[in-house]
Amino acid sequence: MPKNEFSEPHRVVYYEADDTGHLTLAMLINLFVLVSEDQNTALELSPEYIHSLGVGWVVTQYHLQINRLPRIGDHVTLKTRATAFNKYFAYREYWLLAEDGEQLAYGEGIWVTMSYATRKIATIPAAVMAPYETAPVKRLPRLPRPERLDLAATSVAKPYTVRYFDIDENGHVNNAHYFDWMLDALPAEWLRTHQATEVRIRFENEVKYGHQVTSEVAHSAATTTQHTVKIGDTTAVLATIDWQHEA
Amino acid sequence: MPKNEFSEPHRVVYYEADDTGHLTLAMLINLFVLVSEDQNTALELSPEYIHSLGVGWVVTQYHLQINRLPRIGDHVTLKTRATAFNKYFAYREYWLLAEDGEQLAYGEGIWVTMSYATRKIATIPAAVMAPYETAPVKRLPRLPRPERLDLAATSVAKPYTVRYFDIDENGHVNNAHYFDWMLDALPAEWLRTHQATEVRIRFENEVKYGHQVTSEVAHSAATTTQHTVKIGDTTAVLATIDWQHEA
Repeated sequence: MPKNEFSEPHRVVYYEADDTGHLTLAMLINLFVLVSEDQNTALELSPEYIHSLGVGWVVTQYHLQINRLPRIGDHVTLKTRATAFNKYFAYREYWLLAEDGEQLAYGEGIWVTMSYATRKIATIPAAVMAPYETAPVKRLPRLPRPERLDLAATSVAKPYTVRYFDIDENGHVNNAHYFDWMLDALPAEWLRTHQATEVRIRFENEVKYGHQVTSEVAHSAATTTQHTVKIGDTTAVLATIDWQHEA
Repeated sequence: MPKNEFSEPHRVVYYEADDTGHLTLAMLINLFVLVSEDQNTALELSPEYIHSLGVGWVVTQYHLQINRLPRIGDHVTLKTRATAFNKYFAYREYWLLAEDGEQLAYGEGIWVTMSYATRKIATIPAAVMAPYETAPVKRLPRLPRPERLDLAATSVAKPYTVRYFDIDENGHVNNAHYFDWMLDALPAEWLRTHQATEVRIRFENEVKYGHQVTSEVAHSAATTTQHTVKIGDTTAVLATIDWQHEA
């Protein structure tokens, strides 16, 4: 396997699933981040080492395409590839594969390095990319963005408070929790009878411990939902999700 | 290993840890339940089979003693034993062990079988205990109960709404979430500088999707906290937690 690819096995367990027994979207994101962190560890790119360079990785966008989500007890393979990067952006791909190799889900993410000193996007340090042996490129693939529609009049809003246990070891809200907030604003009956097939999500502003956030959702089509997570008037996250009805 | 014992390896990963990098109490409970479910599966006691007998397992009490919680990346062993049972109650033990066998945490739980028809405690069906080869006993060990103190005047209360993703495949709130609600009511600074050493918890009434619950916490001693999770005036969960200061 080339240095920029990495995979590992995983067993889906009960606390990773919803009440239909399927892996949740939040846990899919957790597993994609896990396999990339494990790749970093294998390449001796520990979080401590990256911190020592004055930066931390932050995701700005994901694009997920989901064929079907595995069930409790299923053995799957998590796979990732640090596919391409330029001065400021890194493009990473992710796969969730069944035991027989069937593609269950595919993800793409755009990551940047944030400077601890300036809290702004920094040039990606050469040292954090070198171990992947990925060649730099001029132009990265562009991920499809969520729609920007003003559906406030028809939207449903639910409030959430950021909890202590939403914060991970980096001191940031684990991005997977945005999925809990976004999807929990939909009726349980919808979530039980529909499966997400495509997710476009953009992270615009960071939410912090103790923040009150509002999760707004509206239908822009019969099987498309628009999601916004806001802190007051500030948009933290914007997402568009396509769904299919499950019999 | 006797039929009533079961163990399996586990690696602690980032989304199982809090911002200090240690396994959370909620995840400790998830892992203890996981190893007991995996034991059941190994003995062909699938949830479907147990359901077919008209009952489901429900925990009524846990007693946890914690030496230290493992950190992200640690390899641990989960172990359980279906130690004893009588007509109505089953007593189960749990261990979390370090790679060298050091005991990190020890748990005891009292479980009952609930009838789907009457929603009441039912005689434990012989068929669900037989595969463990555990002999029935007259008297089970008693777990220490949480204190029943009226500390309402000094307590802090935080509201939580039960979310869709708090519900597991059995249609019940995953018990681990009570720990998130109970502990999140404590200040982050306390959680960062203290480690739970002993937990006594009793589950009295079930909370359901959409319920508004209140998590109340008060100090009954410098390093002891009293917790109540309520639905209106009804107590859902009562717990006492002992803490030690971490330098």
